[in-house]
Order: sequence, then C-alpha cells, then structure tokens
Amino acid sequence: MAEPASDLRVAVLGVGMMGAFHADALATRTKGARVVVVNDFAPDKAAEVAGRIGARVVADPLEAIRDPEVDAVLIATPGKAHAEQVQACLDAGKPVLCEKPLTTDEDSSYALVEAEAALGRPLVQLGFMRRFDAEYVALKELITTGGLGNPLLVHCTHRNPSVPEFFNSEFMIRDSVVHEVDVARFLLDEEITSVRVLRGVATSAAPAGTSDPMIVVFETASGRLVTDEIYVRTGIAYEVRTEVVGETGSATIGLDQNLVRTSTDGRWGGQITPGFVERFGQAYDTELQRWVAAASRGTIDGPGVWDGYAAVAVCEAGVKAVQTGEKVPVELKAKPGAPASAAALGTDAEPGITEPDLIGGRP
Amino acid sequence: MAEPASDLRVAVLGVGMMGAFHADALATRTKGARVVVVNDFAPDKAAEVAGRIGARVVADPLEAIRDPEVDAVLIATPGKAHAEQVQACLDAGKPVLCEKPLTTDEDSSYALVEAEAALGRPLVQLGFMRRFDAEYVALKELITTGGLGNPLLVHCTHRNPSVPEFFNSEFMIRDSVVHEVDVARFLLDEEITSVRVLRGVATSAAPAGTSDPMIVVFETASGRLVTDEIYVRTGIAYEVRTEVVGETGSATIGLDQNLVRTSTDGRWGGQITPGFVERFGQAYDTELQRWVAAASRGTIDGPGVWDGYAAVAVCEAGVKAVQTGEKVPVELKAKPGAPASAAALGTDAEPGITEPDLIGGRP
Amino acid sequence: MAEPASDLRVAVLGVGMMGAFHADALATRTKGARVVVVNDFAPDKAAEVAGRIGARVVADPLEAIRDPEVDAVLIATPGKAHAEQVQACLDAGKPVLCEKPLTTDEDSSYALVEAEAALGRPLVQLGFMRRFDAEYVALKELITTGGLGNPLLVHCTHRNPSVPEFFNSEFMIRDSVVHEVDVARFLLDEEITSVRVLRGVATSAAPAGTSDPMIVVFETASGRLVTDEIYVRTGIAYEVRTEVVGETGSATIGLDQNLVRTSTDGRWGGQITPGFVERFGQAYDTELQRWVAAASRGTIDGPGVWDGYAAVAVCEAGVKAVQTGEKVPVELKAKPGAPASAAALGTDAEPGITEPDLIGGRP
Amino acid sequence: MAEPASDLRVAVLGVGMMGAFHADALATRTKGARVVVVNDFAPDKAAEVAGRIGARVVADPLEAIRDPEVDAVLIATPGKAHAEQVQACLDAGKPVLCEKPLTTDEDSSYALVEAEAALGRPLVQLGFMRRFDAEYVALKELITTGGLGNPLLVHCTHRNPSVPEFFNSEFMIRDSVVHEVDVARFLLDEEITSVRVLRGVATSAAPAGTSDPMIVVFETASGRLVTDEIYVRTGIAYEVRTEVVGETGSATIGLDQNLVRTSTDGRWGGQITPGFVERFGQAYDTELQRWVAAASRGTIDGPGVWDGYAAVAVCEAGVKAVQTGEKVPVELKAKPGAPASAAALGTDAEPGITEPDLIGGRP
Repeated sequence: MAEPASDLRVAVLGVGMMGAFHADALATRTKGARVVVVNDFAPDKAAEVAGRIGARVVADPLEAIRDPEVDAVLIATPGKAHAEQVQACLDAGKPVLCEKPLTTDEDSSYALVEAEAALGRPLVQLGFMRRFDAEYVALKELITTGGLGNPLLVHCTHRNPSVPEFFNSEFMIRDSVVHEVDVARFLLDEEITSVRVLRGVATSAAPAGTSDPMIVVFETASGRLVTDEIYVRTGIAYEVRTEVVGETGSATIGLDQNLVRTSTDGRWGGQITPGFVERFGQAYDTELQRWVAAASRGTIDGPGVWDGYAAVAVCEAGVKAVQTGEKVPVELKAKPGAPASAAALGTDAEPGITEPDLIGGRP
Repeated sequence: MAEPASDLRVAVLGVGMMGAFHADALATRTKGARVVVVNDFAPDKAAEVAGRIGARVVADPLEAIRDPEVDAVLIATPGKAHAEQVQACLDAGKPVLCEKPLTTDEDSSYALVEAEAALGRPLVQLGFMRRFDAEYVALKELITTGGLGNPLLVHCTHRNPSVPEFFNSEFMIRDSVVHEVDVARFLLDEEITSVRVLRGVATSAAPAGTSDPMIVVFETASGRLVTDEIYVRTGIAYEVRTEVVGETGSATIGLDQNLVRTSTDGRWGGQITPGFVERFGQAYDTELQRWVAAASRGTIDGPGVWDGYAAVAVCEAGVKAVQTGEKVPVELKAKPGAPASAAALGTDAEPGITEPDLIGGRP
Repeated sequence: MAEPASDLRVAVLGVGMMGAFHADALATRTKGARVVVVNDFAPDKAAEVAGRIGARVVADPLEAIRDPEVDAVLIATPGKAHAEQVQACLDAGKPVLCEKPLTTDEDSSYALVEAEAALGRPLVQLGFMRRFDAEYVALKELITTGGLGNPLLVHCTHRNPSVPEFFNSEFMIRDSVVHEVDVARFLLDEEITSVRVLRGVATSAAPAGTSDPMIVVFETASGRLVTDEIYVRTGIAYEVRTEVVGETGSATIGLDQNLVRTSTDGRWGGQITPGFVERFGQAYDTELQRWVAAASRGTIDGPGVWDGYAAVAVCEAGVKAVQTGEKVPVELKAKPGAPASAAALGTDAEPGITEPDLIGGRP
Repeated sequence: MAEPASDLRVAVLGVGMMGAFHADALATRTKGARVVVVNDFAPDKAAEVAGRIGARVVADPLEAIRDPEVDAVLIATPGKAHAEQVQACLDAGKPVLCEKPLTTDEDSSYALVEAEAALGRPLVQLGFMRRFDAEYVALKELITTGGLGNPLLVHCTHRNPSVPEFFNSEFMIRDSVVHEVDVARFLLDEEITSVRVLRGVATSAAPAGTSDPMIVVFETASGRLVTDEIYVRTGIAYEVRTEVVGETGSATIGLDQNLVRTSTDGRWGGQITPGFVERFGQAYDTELQRWVAAASRGTIDGPGVWDGYAAVAVCEAGVKAVQTGEKVPVELKAKPGAPASAAALGTDAEPGITEPDLIGGRP
C-alpha cells in the first residue's frame, strides 16, 4: 500500500444525524479528506463517531477549530452555536462548511458577512445541498440556457413524512421553507423582497396552533411570484418538487422519482423517496466532495455567507408573516463590495466553477 | 494536511475510453485508491493519462502486473489480451477487476476458472457494472423479497444511439448482448441453457449483412424465457430497459429516466440518457469503490470468474445462433467445487456482502 | 328503417364555437335528441349550422324558446343575453343547459335562483362540463370515499395556449378562473368565502396592464385554501391540472395526458392536449348525453342555478381582488329552501344520480 | 317530442357478455340505431335483454337475420355459429358486424371472402375494435406520417387478470392473440407469413399443460418481426401495450393508463384499467357508432371479411405452432380481385374513410 497525496484534515462539530452523516461520508466515500477531530456537546456521541472513523475527540468546539492538525471545519451543531463557531473559523482562516442556518438572527449573520468581507476571501460555505442535486442543477441549466424563456413563476412543494412535535409554524419556516428560499434565489438569481404566509385548515396530526400545511408566497426583486406548499406531517414520504413556469415552457423536477415501476394489485407505480437521504444523498455527497476540493485550495465552491445571511433575513420575515398574517418586506443590508442596487445574487463561489462535475480533484 | 491511511495502489492496463474513465475515477473520486501505474499499447495515450493523474507508465502489461508497487490491477485492454493478463494477476496473487469479456473463447475462460479454483480464493472480478446500478439492485431486491412472485419472463431492451461500422451481428452479441446475459443470470439466479436469435428487417443504417435490430431469446435451466431486443444504431439515445414478469406482479426499470420534465412546444417529456456514462456512471463508480474496498482486503465484491466464463459460453452459443438461425444449447463445464447439477449461480462475492451500500470502507 | 322513440327537440341559441360544437354533438352523436331550431344574432351563421344539421332558423331567441316544437333549450349566447333567456326558459317551463356564466352579475343570477325556486323544480343546468370529465369524476370519487383523508389543499393549474387580445386580467377571472371556482366547490363540497389575486411578472405576450399569469387564492367556508395558477398565453398547449392534498394522501389529474409515448431525437414524451376539445371533448359529450336524458324527464342532471349564481358571486369578488390587490370576501345570499348556515352545496341534481355512467338512456 | 330521422334497425344475435354490451350501447348511446330483434340460444337471456331495451325476441337466428324489420345484424354468438350466420347476412344483403372470429377454420372463412366478392360490395365488418381505440389510431397515424421512420419491430403485451379454466394454450391463441394478429396487420399494413410460439415456465395459476404466459413471434411478408407476450392469468389488471420500433424513433401505447395519480402510503401511482370495458369502452362505442353510420349507407367502415379470414389463418398456424414448437408458415389463398403478390392489405373499408372522427353522421 502506498502513501497517498496528503488529505484535507477536517474537524466535524456536532455529530447528530446530519453531522454523523457527513462524518461518515468524509471518512468512507469522500476522496482527499480525513476526519481528524470530532466534537459534540454530548461526549458519548462524539466518542462513538470518532471511534468509528478513527478520529480524536476534542471537547471544546472552539479548540477543535483552532487545533493545528485541523485544515477545515464542518459545522453541524445547533443553529444557536453557529455565530461563534463560524467567526472562530474566520479568525483561524480556515474554510468552513456550515449547515443551515448561518446563524439564528439577521444581525449576527450580517456580522459574519462583514467579517468575511474584511478578511477579503470566501471561507464560509453554506450547506444548501440542493444546489448540488442533479435535478436542480439540470433545472437551473435549463433556465440559464433559455430553455424556458423568462421565468415567471416558481412553484415549490415540500412534504415531509413526519417531524418532531416541536415543529410549529415558525419552525417550519426556519427549518423547511429555508430550503425553498435558497432554491428560489438560486433558480431566479435575484433576491426575495417580501414574504406572505397563508394559513388554512391543518392536518389533525398537527399540534394545536400549528398551521401544517401552509402556503408561503415570495416576491422577488423583479416582481416574480414564488409559491411554496410546506407540509411536514403527510405520513407518506419525502416529496420535494419544484416547477418553473417560463414564457416559453415549464419544467418540473421531483415528479418521477422511482427506481422501479411496478404493476401489482391492480395498480402501477413506484416508491417515493422515504427520506432526505434517499432524495438528496447524491447532493450531499457531491457537495462534500466539491467542498473538500475547494477547501484544499483554501476557498469554497457553493453558496456562501451572503446566501446564508439572505436566507436568515427572508426566514425572519417569514416568521413575522406567520404571526401577523401580513405581507412582510425583506430588507437586506448592503452587500459588501457591491452597489446596493445590484439585482443579481453574486454567489460567493469561485468564478468559473459553476456546475457540479462530480469530480472533486485537487491539483 | 495529514498523511492518510495507506491507499490501494492500482495498475490500469488499457486506457482507451473505458480504461481512461476508470483511471480518472480512481484518481479523483474513489476513496482509498491511487493509480500508480498506467499501461497501454499506445505509449502516447499511456503517457497522457499517466501524466494527468500522477502515475508511472509501464510499457509491458505483464511487468505492470508484477510491479512491486502495484497492489491490484484493473484490466481494460482489448479482450484478446485478457487471458494472459488475468492469469498473470492470479500468478501474482493480486486482485483484478477485468472488463468484459473475461476472454475471447470458452476454453481460455474456463482455464481461468480452474486457475482461480486452484488458488483457492476469489481474485478475479468481472466488470458487469449493472449489478451495481441502483435500479438493477432495487429490481433484484424486489425479486428476492418475493415482490413479484416467481419470475416467469424477463424482457430486455438495449438500444445504443450509434456504434462503429465493425459492429456486425456477431459483435452485437459479444459486446452488447453480453450485458443482458449477465443481467438475466443475476436477476434469475440460474444459468442460461440455450440461445436463439431472430433476425428481421434491419435499419438502413446497418451495413449489409448485419441484422440490427435482432431479437435474442434465452432459456434458463428451469425453463424460463428471456427476450432481448438489441438495437445499436437507433440514432436516438442510450436506452436500457428491463422488465421482469412474475406470478404476482411485473416490474420495469429504465422507463422513467429523466432529471427534468418539461412542457414545451405542445409536448411534455424529458431527455433520455444520451450515453452509457449518463446511464451507468453511478454504477461504474459504485463498482469501483466497492472493488477497491474488497481488493484492499485481498478479495472481490461482485461478479466473479465463473460469471465471466458463463457469459463467454452463452455469447459463443449466441454467435452460432446468429449464424445458423437455430436454437443453440449452452453447455457449461463443471463448476469447480460445486456439484454439476447445482441450479443457482453461486456468485463469487464474499458471503454477507450482497448489496451496494455506497460506502466502501476499509477496516 | 324504423321510426325511433321520440327524440328531445332542442333549440340551440348561439352557434359560435361552443354552440356549434354542441349543435353538432346533438345532431350526430347524442342519442335521443334532435336540434329543431337554431338561433344566432348573426343570421348567416345560424343558417349555416341549421342547414348542416337539418334544423329551422328562428331569428328571435325568445321566440325560439317559446316555439311549440321545442322541448328544451341550449344557451350558448354571449353572457349578457343569458339573464333574459334563462328566465324565458323558466317561464316556458322548459329545461335549459346554459353555458357559463349564468349571468353577468350577482343580482341577476340570484333573481334566477329565486325564479327557479318559485317554480319548485330544477330546470336550469350550468355548463360546467368538468364535472363530467372522467378524471374529475375519479378524483371526486377518491375524495368522497376517503382515499385522501380530509382534503386540506387544492392546487389548480389552468394554462391556455393563446387567447384573444381582449382577455385582460378581469376577463381571465370571469372566463377561465370560473372553471376552477366550480371545480373547488365541486371537489370540496362547500362554498368559497374569499378571493385573493396575486399579480407578478407578466409574459411579454400579454398586453400592457394585463397580469398573465396570476395566482388566485380561494378560502372556503371551513377555512381550506385553494390556489390557482391561471396563465392563458403560454404558447404551448391546453394544460389543466388539479391536485388535492389530503391528510392521508394527495392526488393529481391532468398530469399524464398522452395517447402515445415516443422516444425520438434523444427525448421521450408525448403530446399535450392542444385545445379544450382534445382535453374535454369526452366531458362535453357526456354532459350533453346526460342532460338530454334528464331533460327528457323534465329535469336536470348536473350543476344547477345555485352553482351558477355562486360562481358569478366568486368571480365578481375575484374581479374586485384583481383591481384592489386585497382579499375580497364572498357573501352569498340565502339559498332558497336551505338554512343560511348550511355548509354543503346541495347541488341541484336529482337525488340518486351522482355519477356519470356514460349511458344516458330514456325510459 | 319529435319524430326523428329513421334509425337503423339492428338484430343482435347472441347476448352473452359481449352481445349484451353491444345491445345496450346500441339502445342507449349510439345515435341513429335501434335494436329491434334480440336472439340467443338461451331464451331467458334473450328475453331479459330484449325487455330491457324494448326489442322483440326471435328464437331462430337465421329468421332474425331475414326479418323484414331488420336492416343490419350484429353477431356476437359463439364462433362456431358464425359461418352460417354471416352467410345468411350476405344472402339477405344486410350489413353485419361480426365479433371475432370470422369463423372457426380457414376454409369456411375463405368461403365467406368469396361469397362477399361474388356479391360485389363489402357487407361484413369484423369486430376488431382496437382499430377504433384513440391510442391505436394515434400510433397508426404516427407510423403513416413517418414519425418513426420505417417500422422494424412491434412488441405487444397482452395481460388479462383472469380467464375461465378452459382457456388452454390453443384458446389463448384463438381468443387473445387474435387481437395482436390484427394489430400487427393494421399497424404494419402487410400480411403475417409465419408464427412461432415459445413456451416457458407457466404461472402456477395455469392448469397443467397450459403455457401461460407464452411468447408468440410473427414474421411479416417483408420480414419484420412482431413479438407478443400473452399472459392471461396475471391476477392484476387488464394491461395491453404495444410498442413500435422504427428507424428514427419508437412509440408505445398503453403505458400511462390512469385517470388519477396518487401519492399514498409511500408510493405514487395509479390504477391500471381493471378490464376490457375500462380499457376499450371508447373503442367499442366508436366502432359501433361508425358501423351504424356505414351500415345505414349499406356498407362497412372498418376491418372486413379479408381481415377476418387472415386472422383465422394466422391463428390456425399459431395453434399448430403451439402444438409442434416449430415455426409454422401462414399461406393465404388469393385475395379476390387482387394480384396474389400484393403486399399491402387493402382493407375493405370504403376509400377515403380512414380515421375515426367520432362523428358517425348519416346523410
């Protein structure tokens, strides 16, 4: 056996479901990376994951970030810990892949935007994995190449089979709708300027006071409408669909999800992806492989700190919209280095790397 | 950057389209492997690929196999070179992943079966990548778990957009139908006992004397029928479908291949996978990742030398069937270590590892 | 040739596109009916259609209604003529099938509700043909039999390939959205209580000031939400889809409209129904056959005068909503003979005839 | 009520499932026809149907045919009665719609071909209703207009949920495969020249000695291949699919049969048509409406006596092929009035009426 080229040494902070999934992916199927440090507020959990993949446990997350053997950081801790941890990564000059949300409020998110701008180079990548899903990539490509003409409407459908009891209406905005916020910004390449939430009859599976499903409506800077049905207790499967309606055509993804089509018992059909792993496993792996490649060059390759801030701002407006029933404007602060009137997003990825190529090589 | 656990050092023999594809996959997206040696009968091609991925060129394939820095071998040379090269791998005790065909005739293939049996452990894996395709895996699982009842019929459709001029009817059997031979054996878990080829009207794109399309019919040991439409000059796309018809249900794969469904110009629909990379890229990568994991343990994880021999034997009968128009029996020699009457295949993979898990970890 | 049982003798008022379609259907493929009188404000048109199907022209519509040889009336004149003509049918005690709208304002529609109530038996059927479409019938059946659990949301999509220049936003509500008004009432079996219209970026094919597409949102008496994308200048085809999202499942119609699925030019797919005849031809014919059967018994079999009034009231609110941007309540007057608080619709069809059976026989 | 134009007076012979279905269709939803006479070897059954639709019972089928009040005859009696009854229709000069088979053997079928030729005008229409199914019509149109290039292969799938015990392999050929015989001749517009039947493992639901499923292979005059999977005890639903593979494209019908697509219980899908009424109800009704229109003019509009004879001849070869396992040639006698070498079918329909227009008007 030979000594391979040196690997990116990663610290994984938070090894709940998502963090453990990433830790295993880094350890077993991501080329060019190795998890050297695992951290979790639950020491047992940290020890279990670290033991499984041959890493050290470091009890203090900030210490883990500063660890001299750590080249880059993956943050999958609860949102309220993110502000401090991302800032620590910036302080240490280490690339970081931060699961959504960037932080839990607009101001702390914007502070990170400013901190990264002061540093002068992109280090913070947000875990909006759908941008790496083959279907979203193909849909974006179709829009970009003019296959649908000018996009006029986006319709999103986001259905979860089940969620914990504490997922109330506000939580649905912050944790589920946040994905559609990024999808809309990604597909339309412009900011969201207002949010409205329509609350109707709720499923009997929802706790009292929680509107599940809801219809969320975004307006964008150019006046486009985006609708999003968010329904997280369907009891059925994980169904995520997006349709873009343009001037010369419409296109839908997430409709024909099936490996095998059967005819049995008088019916034809297929299995719907039961959970996010089946639906977005490829997207998570591609995201990670490409982040490792970019982080090895000291940069990022995907949605950045501004995308994280914008999503937090829209969700904050969304929570107000849930509570008031009104249309709530989204007012973003100035983008560092960009004229305030800029319409397009200016995602932080390196120029010239705009599509997943599944190959995350390092020079 | 850290020193990772030692990687499997691979020699890639033959870097035409398929070999170069594998070499790039090993170099850039297969965890735990490194290409250290590249060999090709065309020195320029070898140098180009080796340069791209940081490997050495070794001009003599047998020397490449014996190279002390080589842990395992990937053979993607022309079929007529396989017999000698696979034997050399067995002689060197090194795991090998051999692209189809195992060899170009039954006798030399059976010699390798015997040679591996004499060695006493499985070292030869065949590149029947469809066994690692998520759809075939799901279809196999559906059969195995009884979801269709006893399988009665298999219908295969294999359509290529185009092939080189030299793809005559015999070549279509050896190069294209061979995949359906393995698919039928894999899905039904029994041997094919006869082959018939029905030749009808050919596309005007076919050279004189070549029957394209053809209908190939297999019978299996238990009397099941397998039909295969093979059509390699459709001009359309790469369409591979398989339907299994069982006593209590039927199931089809390859039908709803699309990333995006569009409505444009009065029509709805999606793109068909244009080539084998789009259709089977995931299967090739999973095959390679799992082979690397197994080879690192000195074994294989997938179809073995017997599967390679059986496929060669069936294709040889198929070529006779093309030429004579008759139903040609397939008579396999005794399986080493197995009673001659054994019905099931006894694939050479390690017991207990029967489904792709996408994670090719090494202990 | 034999003398058949006597046919229902029908007067067709208005033989524009819709009326001529109905006249031909009555004359050539509706069992048990005969068109005896044709009327149109354009004498040439009336003469042409009458000549084609062997009917008399009567120049005055009210005279046509009162004609002693006329048993029943089909009204396909412009909406502004409906109030007087439907009233004349009631006065004459003759069954009438009236194309939407019932009338052009709430008050005149309600006057007809009251007039029919005074008469004491249902004579007025509204031409909401979707209630006879096999897909809508199957969807309704699925809801009624509990296959989706309690329905929570309805999503409608209504896309026309093109419309005349005068189709402004208000017209889109009155002429296109009116179908979804009836669909929502039919599927959910309750009244619509408010309308909201969201206006976004318009297609460049729309005249200045016209919002095409728009998103219309209904609330129902029990608080359910219904969304409707209305887009009438897509340039593509006639696409009508409806999805119902219930507590235990969702169901969509209009998705897989195709006769033939092709694989050509690297794409698979099918033709979308180009126009309303291809999409709803069966529904129109079934509606007519069943109306003829019912009218021969002196009654109706389908949506009635109350459904017509409710649709006019909702559309009137919808037009206000387009103009003001506000959520506009719908306040229906009391239903004659029903307590004001009744939640369910109480469609006017005869009891016991609730599903299309394709067989419109007369005793 | 008015006296309508005179109706075609029809005698229905045989009111088992199929005959009663037709009798009801004529009585309740076929414009321009009336059943005046009902005949069945079971007097009770005849009386029941006749009573339901207001017709007379005539006990002797030949007398029914000759009845002066009868204009045209619909034969749905058992096949062995057809030869005499069709001949009687020819003798009486009355148009007849004869359910398959024309007769039970080649010679008697050919005798009817000659008898009609002697008469000099087409009076005998065969009940191959698929030629009136909207999907088959669209598929035929696609071929005729060159949308697939030269058709090379046809693949048929014919699956019944269940059949009576007496449906042995021979019966499957005569009763089920006969439809695919006509479909192949219709789509390819040429004669079938040989039949082969491949018998594999049978479903355990099949009686001993019955091969269910079977693969039937036709060759056509120009050398094209047609495959047909016939499986009549699937226990699932009524699934009829046809795929045509041409030089420039392929097309499939029968794949996406569903009214409503649901997502429930982790699966998406739809109902497969449970029986022939759901699958071919429209085809039967269109066939009947067009036959009535043609018969009122003293002629036919659809497959004729030659098509009936050819189907009988192919099925006779098919039965021999089942019994011998050999490829059995089909040798048709000379077509009256046509050179023996004529390649195309020359269907007996009136020239210029080649597509269903759903409107079966009479002048």
